[in-house]
Amino acid sequence: MRPPRGIYCGIACSTGPSPPVIARGKGEGAMPDTGLVSAGREGTREPAAAPKAGRPRDPGIEERVCEAARAVFADDGWAGFGFNQVARRAGVGKNALYLRWNSPQDLLLQALDIAPAWDKIVRSGSVRNQLIDFGVTMLDAYMGPRGMAVLRMFIEANVRPELFEAYWRSVVEPSLDRARNIVLAGIDRGELPVDTDYGDLLDLVHGAVVSRVLVGRHDRRRKNVSRAEAVEYMTRIVDRILCTPTGVTSTH
Amino acid sequence: MRPPRGIYCGIACSTGPSPPVIARGKGEGAMPDTGLVSAGREGTREPAAAPKAGRPRDPGIEERVCEAARAVFADDGWAGFGFNQVARRAGVGKNALYLRWNSPQDLLLQALDIAPAWDKIVRSGSVRNQLIDFGVTMLDAYMGPRGMAVLRMFIEANVRPELFEAYWRSVVEPSLDRARNIVLAGIDRGELPVDTDYGDLLDLVHGAVVSRVLVGRHDRRRKNVSRAEAVEYMTRIVDRILCTPTGVTSTH
Repeated sequence: MRPPRGIYCGIACSTGPSPPVIARGKGEGAMPDTGLVSAGREGTREPAAAPKAGRPRDPGIEERVCEAARAVFADDGWAGFGFNQVARRAGVGKNALYLRWNSPQDLLLQALDIAPAWDKIVRSGSVRNQLIDFGVTMLDAYMGPRGMAVLRMFIEANVRPELFEAYWRSVVEPSLDRARNIVLAGIDRGELPVDTDYGDLLDLVHGAVVSRVLVGRHDRRRKNVSRAEAVEYMTRIVDRILCTPTGVTSTH
Repeated sequence: MRPPRGIYCGIACSTGPSPPVIARGKGEGAMPDTGLVSAGREGTREPAAAPKAGRPRDPGIEERVCEAARAVFADDGWAGFGFNQVARRAGVGKNALYLRWNSPQDLLLQALDIAPAWDKIVRSGSVRNQLIDFGVTMLDAYMGPRGMAVLRMFIEANVRPELFEAYWRSVVEPSLDRARNIVLAGIDRGELPVDTDYGDLLDLVHGAVVSRVLVGRHDRRRKNVSRAEAVEYMTRIVDRILCTPTGVTSTH
């Protein structure tokens, strides 16, 4: 196999299994079902920002607070981010936040964590289907306020390096690992040529999503895509990348 | 031809020539040569924000001011943007700005305009080469402070819709038109199948660039790419998208 050269190649390059994942509470940051999958969860991972131990859990409140946290951060950045502002936006008491998160940073990292969405991506099936599902899930994630919050995070990296460092370590790096493993497993199963550059492949799938969201969401002649359109779009994109039907073997 | 369905399909869909371009002053917002091309300019287009008529031109100062404008906007957004702040950052007198631009918005739109970079993309040659060159030029553009400023612009769209509207009209829309025309001309020349979806194709090229920049620039194990690496990367990306060498005819 050629050494990987895309953006994903900086990440630890072993082909071993993903690090373990701790299953989240239901509804907590969960993305809407992509319609393609109802995935079996496997493996567990330490969440980016675990709620304080022993506190009563109320997934309804937690998701509401995370949604508010994404919105506050997307609009005002870290300079305008705190328990006060998030509690006001979520319409909950400030104490509910102090009970659940150690700091505003912990709350923000949990709100931006993509792990719950990852858990919805199929672990079985062809690499083609997993990539389509990955794309649809990313499209869902970027299309909402999470997308703007993530863009904001990359901008704030210049002025808040310690915040970005925490975000990179707890959210981005594990996501890159898991995306990479989709392609590597496809190579192992013989569905992709052994010299497939997984970095390039993931740049293309992730990039098509970002480009679609970045440009498409502001084009007044384009509305946000429906679930069916998202699946259709990602199918076309992945088939083009994999040179299907002339190229790669698909088991689906 | 199938109706185009990618992000670029909302834009006026005629296959006519690009709108005219007015050639810029040398060095004014020009991107470094990509190494692939020394393009013949053809056609002219009204710049996003033309300097005031009849004023003496000093491309050296204008580029310095535009660079400062991108940096100020990338760091502080529209809330922190004005002739004062930009003049201070550029180390020039405020009068130099009043002489050249009608408003801070005009200055910002010129600073973010991609037209000078577009002028460096070959108009002759295969669609494959033009797409590679487009990708390398975009990579150059996004890699610097312009990339952060553009991301900022998309975030500010939520809170400064009138600013974003002007940016969309004067910068984004003409760029989409020109990118689209690269693919459509390739179809006309018979280099691409007639049912090629140019929206998908451009999502993939532009997206790979954005993904590479968004994730790659913050990965400490990845440095900014050199010119040679950028060309190599975009060649691999475009060849994969076009399914070369098994797919499309390349004249290059």
